Amino acid sequence: MKTVAIFGVGLIGGSFALALRKAGFSGQILGVSSSETIQRALDLNVIDAAAAPDQATRSADLIYLSQPILQILDSLPQIAASAKPGTLVTDAGSTKIEIIRRAAEVFKPGQFLGGHPMAGRERRGVDAAEADLFQDRPYVLTPHSITQLEQPNAQEFQEWLNKIGAVPMVFDAAEHDRIVAFTSHLPQLASTALAAMLSNRPEAKSRVFGPALLDSTRLALSSFDIWGDIFTTNRTAILDALRDYIAQLEQLGDHFETAALSEEFDRAANFAASIREPE
Amino acid sequence: MKTVAIFGVGLIGGSFALALRKAGFSGQILGVSSSETIQRALDLNVIDAAAAPDQATRSADLIYLSQPILQILDSLPQIAASAKPGTLVTDAGSTKIEIIRRAAEVFKPGQFLGGHPMAGRERRGVDAAEADLFQDRPYVLTPHSITQLEQPNAQEFQEWLNKIGAVPMVFDAAEHDRIVAFTSHLPQLASTALAAMLSNRPEAKSRVFGPALLDSTRLALSSFDIWGDIFTTNRTAILDALRDYIAQLEQLGDHFETAALSEEFDRAANFAASIREPE
Repeated sequence: MKTVAIFGVGLIGGSFALALRKAGFSGQILGVSSSETIQRALDLNVIDAAAAPDQATRSADLIYLSQPILQILDSLPQIAASAKPGTLVTDAGSTKIEIIRRAAEVFKPGQFLGGHPMAGRERRGVDAAEADLFQDRPYVLTPHSITQLEQPNAQEFQEWLNKIGAVPMVFDAAEHDRIVAFTSHLPQLASTALAAMLSNRPEAKSRVFGPALLDSTRLALSSFDIWGDIFTTNRTAILDALRDYIAQLEQLGDHFETAALSEEFDRAANFAASIREPE
Repeated sequence: MKTVAIFGVGLIGGSFALALRKAGFSGQILGVSSSETIQRALDLNVIDAAAAPDQATRSADLIYLSQPILQILDSLPQIAASAKPGTLVTDAGSTKIEIIRRAAEVFKPGQFLGGHPMAGRERRGVDAAEADLFQDRPYVLTPHSITQLEQPNAQEFQEWLNKIGAVPMVFDAAEHDRIVAFTSHLPQLASTALAAMLSNRPEAKSRVFGPALLDSTRLALSSFDIWGDIFTTNRTAILDALRDYIAQLEQLGDHFETAALSEEFDRAANFAASIREPE
């Protein structure tokens, strides 16, 4: 591939551009974003040039959609209408069912490949972008069929994912969305709920707290601009996860000062340790 | 002061010893702990010598109790019986009401000063001890009267707290316990509940997760050995905080996909940012 077009040059899109460059990509990287973001991306040498959406779509060999989810959904028909045959269109949206469904309506089979890099920071925007963001992190792919991954455009994209240090993993879109409801969207709600609740409590105005509170409220720094779209497109699975979490908290309260609480702690500590072990 | 006795040479006691030394304390530091811990503390040069409890109590000018809370409660009568007049006995227990109550029964006024350093790590034990653990962290003191802090032994202890970089703050024991129920004990339960719940979910076995899940489950690595005592001695305030948190989570679920959810996010993000600002 010679030309890559990145729609939405924020944390993820900007990091993908920097990662490609670091991994040896020598073609042109075009950016499609707000004029303010484009200027910053040019200043930081994250992209080579700005482009209008149609121009970027027509000239790119890889189109990388890293806007918020609802913007990706809006942009798919226009991109499907002008992308070159053979060009791969892929996205980095945090939920996949809605995007895959819309893509199937407008793209020819083999042209769109859903993706979700499991990487992030609480800071947003192109200023937070870094070439190593995807290093050793899972990169979920949701092909419309198993054979899609064997086609040349998908093969080349997977090679670049490997070069930037990401760990590609293949999932069905519905399976992916259900998993991240539990491993990503619920932790966000848990942190937001803690910070929102404490913001109303006189106890939290004392500045008497340790590192625990900083850990627990780090995710709460995230902006609703991104999360609103995630909640809209993964409602059922997230509400299931939230219900399970509330039930678990109620159980801890019921078990307070019994041996069962100690067992819950052990179970929790074992799980927390297990996700820190190399596979 | 010439001799300091540290009861419980773990993360907190060991760090206090290292911090004192780094701040220029040139007297003797005695350790009272299990023989295994004592050996490790000697190997790491955290303490100068081991001592039996009675010997340490009789010779020390400052007695620092950093065992689990129930052990502190058990040891208070014996220490009160043998400490020299003028020696300050202080503790680092995470809850204060029970310890202050027991101390008032056995010590003469002015000899015991409750304390709680708001510092910690998920790792425990003397191997995790570090001289800078208290640097810029609040160090709560719960004197039995305001004038206690003006007495020579309390003055000298506060001077050492300042030298090790801690930020002394004075609270009533009940006020302290209520605050930490919200800012420390609830975050622990929130993390433990998340990890305990996920340990039962097939969705969490996929290894599809980002940095968010690592942040959210860091506290869940903590051991129940410490937390059991905290829960036993601060039951009412913790169950109040837990009830408030569950209500907030239910509210997020009720507000799902409404403008109110966006407002909760903003409130949470503002709170999370505010506790990261210097005072």
